[in-house]
Amino acid sequence: MIAAKGYAAQAPTTDIAPFSFERRELTPNDVQIEILYCGVCHSDLHVARNEWQHTTYPVVPGHEIVGKVTAVGSAVTKFKEGDLAGVGCLVDSCRECVNCKKGLEQFCKNGSTGTYNSKDKHTGGMTYGGYSNRVVVDESFTLRISDKLPLEAVAPLLCAGITTYSPLRHWKVGKGHKVGVVGLGGLGHMAVKLAASFGAEVTLLSTSAGKEQDAYRLGATKFALTKDPEQLKGLASYFDFIIDSVSAEHDYNTYLSMLNVDGVMICVGAPPTPSQIMAFSLIGGRRSLAGSLIGGLPETQEMLDYCAEHNIVSDVEVIRMDYINEAYERMLKGDVKYRFVIDMATL
Amino acid sequence: MIAAKGYAAQAPTTDIAPFSFERRELTPNDVQIEILYCGVCHSDLHVARNEWQHTTYPVVPGHEIVGKVTAVGSAVTKFKEGDLAGVGCLVDSCRECVNCKKGLEQFCKNGSTGTYNSKDKHTGGMTYGGYSNRVVVDESFTLRISDKLPLEAVAPLLCAGITTYSPLRHWKVGKGHKVGVVGLGGLGHMAVKLAASFGAEVTLLSTSAGKEQDAYRLGATKFALTKDPEQLKGLASYFDFIIDSVSAEHDYNTYLSMLNVDGVMICVGAPPTPSQIMAFSLIGGRRSLAGSLIGGLPETQEMLDYCAEHNIVSDVEVIRMDYINEAYERMLKGDVKYRFVIDMATL
Repeated sequence: MIAAKGYAAQAPTTDIAPFSFERRELTPNDVQIEILYCGVCHSDLHVARNEWQHTTYPVVPGHEIVGKVTAVGSAVTKFKEGDLAGVGCLVDSCRECVNCKKGLEQFCKNGSTGTYNSKDKHTGGMTYGGYSNRVVVDESFTLRISDKLPLEAVAPLLCAGITTYSPLRHWKVGKGHKVGVVGLGGLGHMAVKLAASFGAEVTLLSTSAGKEQDAYRLGATKFALTKDPEQLKGLASYFDFIIDSVSAEHDYNTYLSMLNVDGVMICVGAPPTPSQIMAFSLIGGRRSLAGSLIGGLPETQEMLDYCAEHNIVSDVEVIRMDYINEAYERMLKGDVKYRFVIDMATL
Repeated sequence: MIAAKGYAAQAPTTDIAPFSFERRELTPNDVQIEILYCGVCHSDLHVARNEWQHTTYPVVPGHEIVGKVTAVGSAVTKFKEGDLAGVGCLVDSCRECVNCKKGLEQFCKNGSTGTYNSKDKHTGGMTYGGYSNRVVVDESFTLRISDKLPLEAVAPLLCAGITTYSPLRHWKVGKGHKVGVVGLGGLGHMAVKLAASFGAEVTLLSTSAGKEQDAYRLGATKFALTKDPEQLKGLASYFDFIIDSVSAEHDYNTYLSMLNVDGVMICVGAPPTPSQIMAFSLIGGRRSLAGSLIGGLPETQEMLDYCAEHNIVSDVEVIRMDYINEAYERMLKGDVKYRFVIDMATL
């Protein structure tokens, strides 16, 4: 086994703290990566605190991983020592079901393996995530990373980037479309950048007036303060698509009424409680309310290549590893523009 | 003005009773139709009893109208005296907005005119529906009716038929698709017939074991009693599409979990109270919850032509006009297979 160190939560209510553990020896298909940066996703906090009631402790969070390959298994063809590499939310899947064969590993019928808090098929233990110095991952679940972009700002693309890129591509959002983005956080700010880069007219819908100038800087051309009914008046039946990035409780019907005929509202944030939907909100306009979950491996690579070509990265605040507990508190208050990224040199 | 007689509700709580009124004189584009049959839709009852809080009394319900042309305006080209003709839920729209130009008059941006309980642009009064001996309608909102099918069984196609045909066509449902139909009533039985005729594998999802044999007769090949968890086990992530025809309160999440990746659940029934939706039900599988509303005029004609060609009609129970109040009570109990149709000769 390979010695590793990182930061783990040992219980729902304790701080995340230093932790020593082991990574598996490289199988022929594995890549060993020295982690340079790891983004901090809201899911990390949910799992660290067992808010989804399925955490196995200790848990090492982190699934926005960028680093450098330091060793490869005998059968590895995509990577060699010294290459940049990335790991997102998944590190394995059955690879045989109809969804895996379509490159939709996130919907693996036999259950995909998460980058942390999942059963590792090789060791029988749990997977440990990117809040650590190194990771061993099958090359099929390892992404190529361009050297053209600042690596710390690439890390969040592995989750926040693909989570917003995937639905925008699936629903073929582009020129001529009016897109509303609800919420400007880690996901929302990537949705604004990507939708704008695909040629859509982007409106940021936010409860916070302070986000307006940032929205424009990121690529939006319109802004509406959703607390002000006056600002919403012109938006009835306005949008072709709405990307809803908000994970807090909120009223979906307000946004559904802003969809034009055949409009689609796509939830990428998952509020903890159910939302009340009036069927009439959907029927009157043949509207759809949809969900989307990260993206498969081929599309994640496509997204990374697209972002490298178009110079798109996340807006980040780089932090030290030992700042993580404070970062969580600030994340809960929405006090981050727009993603914390851990510099692993500080571990 | 043209003298007409029919049955109207005068108040939310009184029975529907005989009523004399006037139809407008024919404009150059109008068709006068002697009504032979009129289907009884659940909306008729909602409006008669002001359950949607927008009824103007007296109201003459009925928007599943089939009859014979008895006079035409000077500019009418599609119809001549003696032709069969049909009228559905709409009798007018602006004809100039983007939706009207696409043949989606049901989503007219300036407000379409319903067959009853709407403002008549010509008279300034209210429109009166098909529970009457005659009607005057613009030829653009009048449908051609084949003489190949029993007319009483064609009438419900004008609402129940198009309401289910339109989403099945819009989402391109056909061979190779697994379709679930929730509820076997006026809408549900048409959804089963049409989806089966398009080549899909149809499963009826019903709370009533007594519907099983009928489901098979109508074209379903599978049946699941939704009250029995055992029968639902094999249906997790099973369907490509679900048509939900139920207007009573029910749990959408149960059905959403039966959708496969990229599956779409389409509501054509509108429960009076909101439904609770967990975003995870949509996110886990990139599922969509959509709504659909009747259909535009071109598609309604297409549906009628398709049904004539494929010998598809509604299962009906023909009633006398003076049976309507009893029919409403039976409809509320689900005691009709599967649509009441009024024989206007009994008026």
